[in-house]
Amino acid sequence: MKEIMAVIRLNKIGATKKALLDENFPAFTGYKVMGRGKAKVNFELVVDEVSAGNVESSLAEEVSETHRLIPKRLIELVVHDEDVQRAVDAILKVNSNGHPGDGKIFVLPVSEAYQVRTGESGEAVV
Amino acid sequence: MKEIMAVIRLNKIGATKKALLDENFPAFTGYKVMGRGKAKVNFELVVDEVSAGNVESSLAEEVSETHRLIPKRLIELVVHDEDVQRAVDAILKVNSNGHPGDGKIFVLPVSEAYQVRTGESGEAVV
Amino acid sequence: MKEIMAVIRLNKIGATKKALLDENFPAFTGYKVMGRGKAKVNFELVVDEVSAGNVESSLAEEVSETHRLIPKRLIELVVHDEDVQRAVDAILKVNSNGHPGDGKIFVLPVSEAYQVRTGESGEAVV
Repeated sequence: MKEIMAVIRLNKIGATKKALLDENFPAFTGYKVMGRGKAKVNFELVVDEVSAGNVESSLAEEVSETHRLIPKRLIELVVHDEDVQRAVDAILKVNSNGHPGDGKIFVLPVSEAYQVRTGESGEAVV
Repeated sequence: MKEIMAVIRLNKIGATKKALLDENFPAFTGYKVMGRGKAKVNFELVVDEVSAGNVESSLAEEVSETHRLIPKRLIELVVHDEDVQRAVDAILKVNSNGHPGDGKIFVLPVSEAYQVRTGESGEAVV
Repeated sequence: MKEIMAVIRLNKIGATKKALLDENFPAFTGYKVMGRGKAKVNFELVVDEVSAGNVESSLAEEVSETHRLIPKRLIELVVHDEDVQRAVDAILKVNSNGHPGDGKIFVLPVSEAYQVRTGESGEAVV
């Protein structure tokens, strides 16, 4: 089993959900996150959570001028080893636009999975 | 060391915190997440974050009619290898209700842990 | 590749971002989380999300009297194996104050990474 963690653009969550569904990956979890990549990117709308109520706000503001944190979405899903590439491809298909900020996908090993409803564990619950 | 990641119902966070505490697992982190499992589930109250301010909202709405994202809570804690089953059982005990949407638990390998206060690393900091 | 997951204080996100940037780790993701460690800690301002709209609020309140969940920030970044110590040291340097609540850092193995923009995978995308 593997966990697929993808940081994507806010406005891609709907298309990503549909792309995964189409490939028979209905289950996933989404988070609101703030992120940044390697490149310096200009966005029209940036809400920097760091600047709100931070005792080190002058430092934070200085940093954020060139390295702002951008609101992104993080999605996580757990799949069988043999399905990793298919799930990654589904995410890439709707998120690759050739622009900085398109995101990153990470694949992490998973040791075990449990279905809470039944207590059942193993590959079958994924 | 292992990380235990559990996606549970909103209203189970208090009972889960207590169940883990009773088993001497006081430390954990909780997130607000949006998630969905394999089954189509009807909930009384569903807030679909996708539909708010999404440039692909028509697509998102279409998808979300049958596959809505549900507000859930994700909790994470890191435990010693020999304590994984006991922590999982504590979570299952208060979250298994035999209904779809009860959640999932995933166990991930952890390579190293550090206590920020002291800089100390290893099993002792877990 | 390794994922570094650090739970830190709210007011340390700016300094941590700068410390990582100074060590040439520009890319990371930040979350708002609620957490607690092993120690009982008194904070001036505690917002316990558990107490809001929880059907088990009486239980939650009882638990939260001595074991409150504290708003924290979680940051995640993925680095090359040989860079883990340098990234951990950068985080420790600005977050170690010798007080309970300074946080924890966990290091998790990562199997693969993809750049969404190009579809490229491997160590080069980290």
